Amino acid sequence: MIGGGQGAFIGGVHRIAAQLDNAYELVCGAFSSNAEKSKASGEMLGIAPERVYASYKELFEKEQQLPEAQRVQVISIVTPNHVHFEPAKMALESGFHVILDKPMTFSLEEALQLRDVQERSGMLFCLTHTYTGYPMVKEARQLVASGKLGQIRKVYVEYPQGWLSTFEEGGENKQASWRTDPKQSGIAGAMGDIGTHAFNLAEYVSGLAVTKINADINVVVDGRQLDDDGAALLKFDNGASGVLVATQVAAGEENNVRIRVYGEKGGLEWQQEDANTLQVKWLDRPNEIYRTGGGNYLSSYAQHNTRTPGGHPEGYLEAFANLYRNFALCVQARLKGEEPQPEWQDYPGIEDGVRGMAFIENVIASGQSNQKWTDFTI
Amino acid sequence: MIGGGQGAFIGGVHRIAAQLDNAYELVCGAFSSNAEKSKASGEMLGIAPERVYASYKELFEKEQQLPEAQRVQVISIVTPNHVHFEPAKMALESGFHVILDKPMTFSLEEALQLRDVQERSGMLFCLTHTYTGYPMVKEARQLVASGKLGQIRKVYVEYPQGWLSTFEEGGENKQASWRTDPKQSGIAGAMGDIGTHAFNLAEYVSGLAVTKINADINVVVDGRQLDDDGAALLKFDNGASGVLVATQVAAGEENNVRIRVYGEKGGLEWQQEDANTLQVKWLDRPNEIYRTGGGNYLSSYAQHNTRTPGGHPEGYLEAFANLYRNFALCVQARLKGEEPQPEWQDYPGIEDGVRGMAFIENVIASGQSNQKWTDFTI
Amino acid sequence: MIGGGQGAFIGGVHRIAAQLDNAYELVCGAFSSNAEKSKASGEMLGIAPERVYASYKELFEKEQQLPEAQRVQVISIVTPNHVHFEPAKMALESGFHVILDKPMTFSLEEALQLRDVQERSGMLFCLTHTYTGYPMVKEARQLVASGKLGQIRKVYVEYPQGWLSTFEEGGENKQASWRTDPKQSGIAGAMGDIGTHAFNLAEYVSGLAVTKINADINVVVDGRQLDDDGAALLKFDNGASGVLVATQVAAGEENNVRIRVYGEKGGLEWQQEDANTLQVKWLDRPNEIYRTGGGNYLSSYAQHNTRTPGGHPEGYLEAFANLYRNFALCVQARLKGEEPQPEWQDYPGIEDGVRGMAFIENVIASGQSNQKWTDFTI
Amino acid sequence: MIGGGQGAFIGGVHRIAAQLDNAYELVCGAFSSNAEKSKASGEMLGIAPERVYASYKELFEKEQQLPEAQRVQVISIVTPNHVHFEPAKMALESGFHVILDKPMTFSLEEALQLRDVQERSGMLFCLTHTYTGYPMVKEARQLVASGKLGQIRKVYVEYPQGWLSTFEEGGENKQASWRTDPKQSGIAGAMGDIGTHAFNLAEYVSGLAVTKINADINVVVDGRQLDDDGAALLKFDNGASGVLVATQVAAGEENNVRIRVYGEKGGLEWQQEDANTLQVKWLDRPNEIYRTGGGNYLSSYAQHNTRTPGGHPEGYLEAFANLYRNFALCVQARLKGEEPQPEWQDYPGIEDGVRGMAFIENVIASGQSNQKWTDFTI
Repeated sequence: MIGGGQGAFIGGVHRIAAQLDNAYELVCGAFSSNAEKSKASGEMLGIAPERVYASYKELFEKEQQLPEAQRVQVISIVTPNHVHFEPAKMALESGFHVILDKPMTFSLEEALQLRDVQERSGMLFCLTHTYTGYPMVKEARQLVASGKLGQIRKVYVEYPQGWLSTFEEGGENKQASWRTDPKQSGIAGAMGDIGTHAFNLAEYVSGLAVTKINADINVVVDGRQLDDDGAALLKFDNGASGVLVATQVAAGEENNVRIRVYGEKGGLEWQQEDANTLQVKWLDRPNEIYRTGGGNYLSSYAQHNTRTPGGHPEGYLEAFANLYRNFALCVQARLKGEEPQPEWQDYPGIEDGVRGMAFIENVIASGQSNQKWTDFTI
Repeated sequence: MIGGGQGAFIGGVHRIAAQLDNAYELVCGAFSSNAEKSKASGEMLGIAPERVYASYKELFEKEQQLPEAQRVQVISIVTPNHVHFEPAKMALESGFHVILDKPMTFSLEEALQLRDVQERSGMLFCLTHTYTGYPMVKEARQLVASGKLGQIRKVYVEYPQGWLSTFEEGGENKQASWRTDPKQSGIAGAMGDIGTHAFNLAEYVSGLAVTKINADINVVVDGRQLDDDGAALLKFDNGASGVLVATQVAAGEENNVRIRVYGEKGGLEWQQEDANTLQVKWLDRPNEIYRTGGGNYLSSYAQHNTRTPGGHPEGYLEAFANLYRNFALCVQARLKGEEPQPEWQDYPGIEDGVRGMAFIENVIASGQSNQKWTDFTI
Repeated sequence: MIGGGQGAFIGGVHRIAAQLDNAYELVCGAFSSNAEKSKASGEMLGIAPERVYASYKELFEKEQQLPEAQRVQVISIVTPNHVHFEPAKMALESGFHVILDKPMTFSLEEALQLRDVQERSGMLFCLTHTYTGYPMVKEARQLVASGKLGQIRKVYVEYPQGWLSTFEEGGENKQASWRTDPKQSGIAGAMGDIGTHAFNLAEYVSGLAVTKINADINVVVDGRQLDDDGAALLKFDNGASGVLVATQVAAGEENNVRIRVYGEKGGLEWQQEDANTLQVKWLDRPNEIYRTGGGNYLSSYAQHNTRTPGGHPEGYLEAFANLYRNFALCVQARLKGEEPQPEWQDYPGIEDGVRGMAFIENVIASGQSNQKWTDFTI
Repeated sequence: MIGGGQGAFIGGVHRIAAQLDNAYELVCGAFSSNAEKSKASGEMLGIAPERVYASYKELFEKEQQLPEAQRVQVISIVTPNHVHFEPAKMALESGFHVILDKPMTFSLEEALQLRDVQERSGMLFCLTHTYTGYPMVKEARQLVASGKLGQIRKVYVEYPQGWLSTFEEGGENKQASWRTDPKQSGIAGAMGDIGTHAFNLAEYVSGLAVTKINADINVVVDGRQLDDDGAALLKFDNGASGVLVATQVAAGEENNVRIRVYGEKGGLEWQQEDANTLQVKWLDRPNEIYRTGGGNYLSSYAQHNTRTPGGHPEGYLEAFANLYRNFALCVQARLKGEEPQPEWQDYPGIEDGVRGMAFIENVIASGQSNQKWTDFTI
């Protein structure tokens, strides 16, 4: 693991996600750019001291020298955005599979480079767009893909948060500080942090690609350096249209990511606050409630990504763990020279990362433009 | 009553709303442009045959000749949009108070004329933007006005329907037919029918005025003559921004009008499907659930517009009846020469109508424009 | 109308229910046992002074002397429980149809007498068990009757309120005072006031009859004279079992009557707080959401009792009005010598009243008994 | 680990719960009474072959002989009920801490013996009543304990399932087979499997002890050997009363455990299907929504048992993991000779197990009795 030392948030989530299904063992790490902190974090995590490194460069060098059987196989990178590209590139080039936190890089330019590196390396790559790990989100994608809803016409996606309603970045709040700092986060704040999640979810569930954006991007809180709010009208490649909302100043909101998709014959609705439910809506008969663990009416994708019987809720950590588990299944299949099952391959990858970075650049460009519609370009 | 004969929808709703609190008696009508139908409808409604008229012109003429004590006092106009202006104008000029279904007129031009007529006439005027009649919508407005949420930053309003997901207007569906016909509805379909409700709700609850619109307006169903879908980014006069969604092709949706408003310190959420609940959200303490009939923590506006104890749900007809009742209280106060209470005066009026028509023209103009933001002009 | 003068609660609800569909006109009344109050109430309601009576006896006498065309047809009785039997009996014997508030009488003995009177009189009789007026409650009954859920095994019904959590009856609260007074309410408090509603709902939806009761009846608040809380285990005539809960000391609860019924193949759930929704549950496929106004999948009973399109909520007053409307349709059919439709006849009647009074006596007896199961006897 | 081999359900849950926080390492096991199956399961789990044992007896013998540093410390027992007592006893007597699945033993007699053994052994003991591991359940307990709701008057708890609505035990369904078999489950079916959970939850949240039971216990499905349904009226030691429902024949229900507690001043409601929400209800002000991760208004108990920020749902596995984590913290504190924090000690223990077994025996006895109230005896 690169990053995720004491005081970090997402590193701990990654560790739980990795170990939840017993598919990974945490064997080495460079947990902080500060060597002392890295050491302390490694000790706390029970890592053998000789495999706690002062930097990710050292990690790659030293691990490559270990015999293959002892060497780490998968590198998990959980640093702030500006420290994504270099370690990911080095990891892939050093022959390690990579799990990388989103957004993929600091810029689209880096993302395109990383795609080249990954393709050349032949190593596997996963980007942790967590929400696509929920069983009912997978069910939603399968339902759209099945054609049962008819051709898709509308996609509404939103990610409202309230935690940046005041100027948090001055003080102790490490999360607020780096996420609002252009040097660490890049050109976007809310759009990079949560807008990319919403964008990824919209494309994942609908199976469509955004082609045009018309965005309103705002800095609401005085003194903030990056956008903390925005909304965008969208056009998709099949002619559908939609709306994306991402805001960090909706006071009183937590993380209620929500998506609604409507086709000619029906629609669906999913929201994180009721993550084990998929509402399925029909033009001419009663709406239905699909549930995690609900049984044979669910697709193999939903069933594969479920651990508990219906009614015992699974949550964010399980969704995250689904990404890790599916990635591990693909890594293991490769080790065995077997073809991974389609359900295992259903995790976000390098292309999602490129499109996510393109979203950031396009949505910010649209926000700054007087032109109504900006073509979604990569 | 003008319009609302057999086969109509909203006429029946108006009649229930009027009689629910026993504040009106239906004494005369021109229920259809077809004299036979008008007569039949009047008979069904138990109106004295001599006061069932073949046309609204006849109604105004004959009723004006009646002694004041027998004469109708309030005219309710529930015709399709293209038959709003003329009867409303004649009613006001003939000295009758008017209740008019929304949108107010066929065009903004007519709306501005009607405003002049109404001002000159000195008669009272109510426009039936039903949703502002719900007790918890009134509470929402009062909560914003109280300043407890801090300065408002975000307004999200949506009105998703699914009933026009297919081409309904060819056949028996009278509602579909006139609402999608530019000759009867005007330049807008969804935006006029439900977009105006959403717009009115947003301005009513937030206490703000829209200043700019950036809209995407669509005709989704093949062959349809008017928009059946749209979304608009909004700017408000205090610098807040927002999103308005109105669609008639969200298959499986009924009429779940929903509004969310966020300020510096908290937010609120209301939706018609849970109409007796107002969710009140706070930055730093537990969210609260305000309820119709909830007691002393509610404003006088919510309390005045409630008929049943908490937990006995009130719905759409009661919200509608609140408009009628408040209007009646104001008419009665005028008859008595008394000052109406502020709670009674809280019904939508001529200014809401003008702004609603301006919304229609501005949002359609924005939809057709390549310019990103269209100033909201009247 | 008998009762329902100034300060009363349920009288106003009855009046709204009656006039909502324009099927009744309020023409006379004895609104209070106090002649002055009755007069004042009548004036406020706009009744001709000569038809505002000082007592119900006077009302029956005088109205009988009027020519048939002017005479009142239906008597609505909304007095406290101890003034139910006598006016109801006199009304029936004087040739008037009767709508009576629940519980039907002061004692089972009176109820049985009233049944005899009603049968002999041949007049129509309705008891206002409001909750059976909701379209989705009617749908629930029809769904059970259709056999789609299989044989019924479990019935859970509950009526939690919190408004009597403290000793309210000492002071101004007129509702609290009479409802906790054995001289006005009879032998039961909560069980009579809301337990009868729950009992009636359970039998109505399940189509079953209670055969045994095992009850725990409590007076929770110090100084109270009647039960304010209770629960009962139930046995039904087909072998099913169930639980009934009725309490007035569930602090923070409003009136969330709720019923759940389970059969071999599926179940259903309805609650007043989400009155326009019926949850339909299945063993082996996704649960479904039936909605008021939902369309052709609904039974004729649900459709007949609905006024607005799906998504425009109907509530308590509409449910109440359904009783009044169906009763009016039956009265009118009789006047025309026609057979009323089955949907019109679906309102609670004398038999519901007898069973409700038997419930009160049996449940209180069981509460006082050391015997586990008390046979439900009439 | 004892039990939990291939085909088992709860064993996998225990393993996830143990490893989720990285506080345990699975080092040895006797995963099945069948030595071959145990071996295969151990291999699949990546356990060193020499520490996969053919029986739990062998496990204890061999592990005791290992040097202390290598020896297993905590034994997790996840076998069917009839194989709880002996391995638990042997584990404690062999000097291992024990985590045991509920219900604690096969009979109350065994439970009392086990309590003696545990007390003499001085080893730590945890019983996995999962639902008390939810942060919002802990918050509920703290809220009651704080006195803010006033003296508790009513406790309603229910655990409705539908998975045994048909005769499942004949075939492949291993879970159904052992849970309905008196030789493996003991004298109770539903009451032992889920009734004990409901009972434990009621006493945990209310802080009260049940003193009397009045139960209706049923075998609904033909041919079933143990109860699959029941309900009980309850009395508590402070005079409060309540209702407990546990059923496995509520067709269409999953595992929606729900508890409601009402005091003089307010109430609370929690249900597993919305596990991250605690509804807090008040007599005289708006109800409140407490949320997992909600911030400083939450007790230290809720905060300690939460891993993710508000709005990222935690579920059943995290609740289970909270038991494991708290137990590990107590084990570690003991190893360090430190006093564990109160929050760590808040996991179900031997006393909960004894009361749970007493509940089973008392509730079944009450079900068979003609006497109304059965004293809760141990």
